[in-house]
Amino acid sequence: MEHLIGGAAAVLGTICWLPQTLKTWRSRETKDLSLPANLLILTTLTLWLAYGLMIAAWPLILGNVISILLVGAIVIAKLKFG
Amino acid sequence: MEHLIGGAAAVLGTICWLPQTLKTWRSRETKDLSLPANLLILTTLTLWLAYGLMIAAWPLILGNVISILLVGAIVIAKLKFG
Repeated sequence: MEHLIGGAAAVLGTICWLPQTLKTWRSRETKDLSLPANLLILTTLTLWLAYGLMIAAWPLILGNVISILLVGAIVIAKLKFG
Repeated sequence: MEHLIGGAAAVLGTICWLPQTLKTWRSRETKDLSLPANLLILTTLTLWLAYGLMIAAWPLILGNVISILLVGAIVIAKLKFG
């Protein structure tokens, strides 16, 4: 049961960034987004990826690579659109 | 070494929400925030909390309770300020 809940959290933790990335790139408006928050989230995801690589946990590696791309796109939008 | 990286990721994963919560409640502007994204993040954190309770992992429980409060405050702001 705990594996099911943990797995669901990991999958949802990857998908959850998608609506913000889509909204941001569609509207090209980023005024209300916090750059420090998104940079810290990106750093967190990179640390989880490093941890996943160290313990060779593929779900962690795959999930974090996708999340890094999605949050990276938000950070790029914020830097571009202000 | 991997415990250090994993621990840093867990701590940063809690702190990272703070700048967005502060920015949102100071400015009271939430137009550029995605409600679905923040609801999915809140659901993810709740699943991690449930997982933490199931495996009795106190750092996971504590970190996710704090994160839920911070992201919950963003969701409330979004519902209030639109």
